[in-house]
Amino acid sequence: MKGTVGELGEFGLIRELTSRLTSTPAVRLGPGDDAAVVAAPDRRVVASTDVLLEGRHFRRDWSTAYDVGRKAAAQNLADIAAMGAVPTALLLGLVVPADLPATWANELMDGLRDECQVAGAAVVGGDVVRGETITVAITALGDLRNHEPVTRAGARPGDVVAVTGWLGWSAAGHAVLSRGFRSPRAFVEAHRRPEPPYHAGPAAAGLGATAMTDVSDGLVADLGHIAEASKVRIDLSSASIDIPSQMSDIGQAVGVDPLQWVLNGGEDHAIVATFPSDVKLPARWKVIGEVRNPSALPQVTVDGAPWAKAGWDHFSDIEESAGS
Amino acid sequence: MKGTVGELGEFGLIRELTSRLTSTPAVRLGPGDDAAVVAAPDRRVVASTDVLLEGRHFRRDWSTAYDVGRKAAAQNLADIAAMGAVPTALLLGLVVPADLPATWANELMDGLRDECQVAGAAVVGGDVVRGETITVAITALGDLRNHEPVTRAGARPGDVVAVTGWLGWSAAGHAVLSRGFRSPRAFVEAHRRPEPPYHAGPAAAGLGATAMTDVSDGLVADLGHIAEASKVRIDLSSASIDIPSQMSDIGQAVGVDPLQWVLNGGEDHAIVATFPSDVKLPARWKVIGEVRNPSALPQVTVDGAPWAKAGWDHFSDIEESAGS
Repeated sequence: MKGTVGELGEFGLIRELTSRLTSTPAVRLGPGDDAAVVAAPDRRVVASTDVLLEGRHFRRDWSTAYDVGRKAAAQNLADIAAMGAVPTALLLGLVVPADLPATWANELMDGLRDECQVAGAAVVGGDVVRGETITVAITALGDLRNHEPVTRAGARPGDVVAVTGWLGWSAAGHAVLSRGFRSPRAFVEAHRRPEPPYHAGPAAAGLGATAMTDVSDGLVADLGHIAEASKVRIDLSSASIDIPSQMSDIGQAVGVDPLQWVLNGGEDHAIVATFPSDVKLPARWKVIGEVRNPSALPQVTVDGAPWAKAGWDHFSDIEESAGS
Repeated sequence: MKGTVGELGEFGLIRELTSRLTSTPAVRLGPGDDAAVVAAPDRRVVASTDVLLEGRHFRRDWSTAYDVGRKAAAQNLADIAAMGAVPTALLLGLVVPADLPATWANELMDGLRDECQVAGAAVVGGDVVRGETITVAITALGDLRNHEPVTRAGARPGDVVAVTGWLGWSAAGHAVLSRGFRSPRAFVEAHRRPEPPYHAGPAAAGLGATAMTDVSDGLVADLGHIAEASKVRIDLSSASIDIPSQMSDIGQAVGVDPLQWVLNGGEDHAIVATFPSDVKLPARWKVIGEVRNPSALPQVTVDGAPWAKAGWDHFSDIEESAGS
């Protein structure tokens, strides 16, 4: 555990990292060979890739390595769940500076492993190379269990829009952290370590969801992707969106309308889906809007009117910050 | 096509990149949703990840973006083939500086696409983020077609060791390029764009290969991985290893024993496997050694004696160079 990753060397580091992993019955061949082998009982595999960079997607002074691992895994596993699939496996492409403490890499791996366990998956392989900027490239795999994948393209006018999971908590935590505060803890924790409702994805597929995505760029932006792909308009009802009183308090303290966090904040990885209007949704889903016919209005409206700020582009300089 | 990736923005770049892709029947859902869906008829999926960094694994003055794409894909698809599987899909995690010409990213994607086509696979998804160093993180998927995966752990004393594909060509090309030359073209081309014998992997599985890997770190080093995992010694016969006359000529010109390139040079992604001694191998396989019982000798020997240089560790400063 002592020393830097440069001192350990490539093979030494890989040995340490893989020694920390746990497995599941779906892992037919784990790390250490040319490739891993993972069960795909559905005869189809769902796969998604995300890249996180230090300074851009996380900061070592804001988040522990463990939290970065939890968050990196969560982000990818939520993509799998949002297709209606059960996450099975995760692969890691890791770039580390030679002077990085090996403990940092180990704790990152612990975070990946533990988040995988929450979702029922396991880390099955990866690659480690030396470079300037810590880079965490994750690929997650999942199994559809005989459901058809729920894409962004199936929403139909008349469907209801429902959400489950947390909304705006990560953004509120980011606002707190970026102003130099470390509390309230609940929001800071939510920013450091999202808790996607993994089980809700496959469950929604079973309930007949017509379109689904996880909220990574912000609710309005991500519903925009559904509206675009489905060629519909989505209207949200602000009255049906709960703002927790703690969030209102923080909003007042930092001078931000908390509805901004709920509608534009990403990274909580809530799951939002559209369903036929006669669906009976479990209690943890909340209906927040309706699918309409496309019109001259923007693709996503709030109470029938345009909503000013529609998420951000990770490439633009405006709004750029770690955690966005 | 004009301008930089920063000018295009994240979504603009992703649109350009995905517009260049082709598909295959195995692709059930391509790029553009939360995740891709790929056929896995075997009910298991083979998966492998590799990361390439500019300056470390490729140089823009030595290789075109197209060649980097070909090589990055080849490296991963060869890992899939070396398990005995047929490559089906590839996912890309791409880090690009904002001032990178968009044409570079487009040509990289063309290279990935075309190498996938050679192997029968398709690019199905990915992620693009802005950062300082061009980073290409690839995950390849494959299908075992009812063969058991051929790991590194199954070699048994008495098995023969056989290889197919090119050996030492990339290393010879690297030697030429690092001395400031651009020819002979055949070697320079081999360094820029390896040609792994993808079909040979699944074919070897069908022929009863007991262990298999692709040659990425060098023949001796990669056979060392098989010897280690299988708890055997592997003895190569130098007389059975052909050195092409052009390679001997280059060796003489630059003062290197070409056997070094053949035994220690990686990146050609030849496929080396062990087989029961009574196997009937197709003409393109060449028997180059034998599996022995473990002994006090190193795990890989040449003509029964230790071989001096056993590949390199990508983390050590010794031998570090782009292309290693």
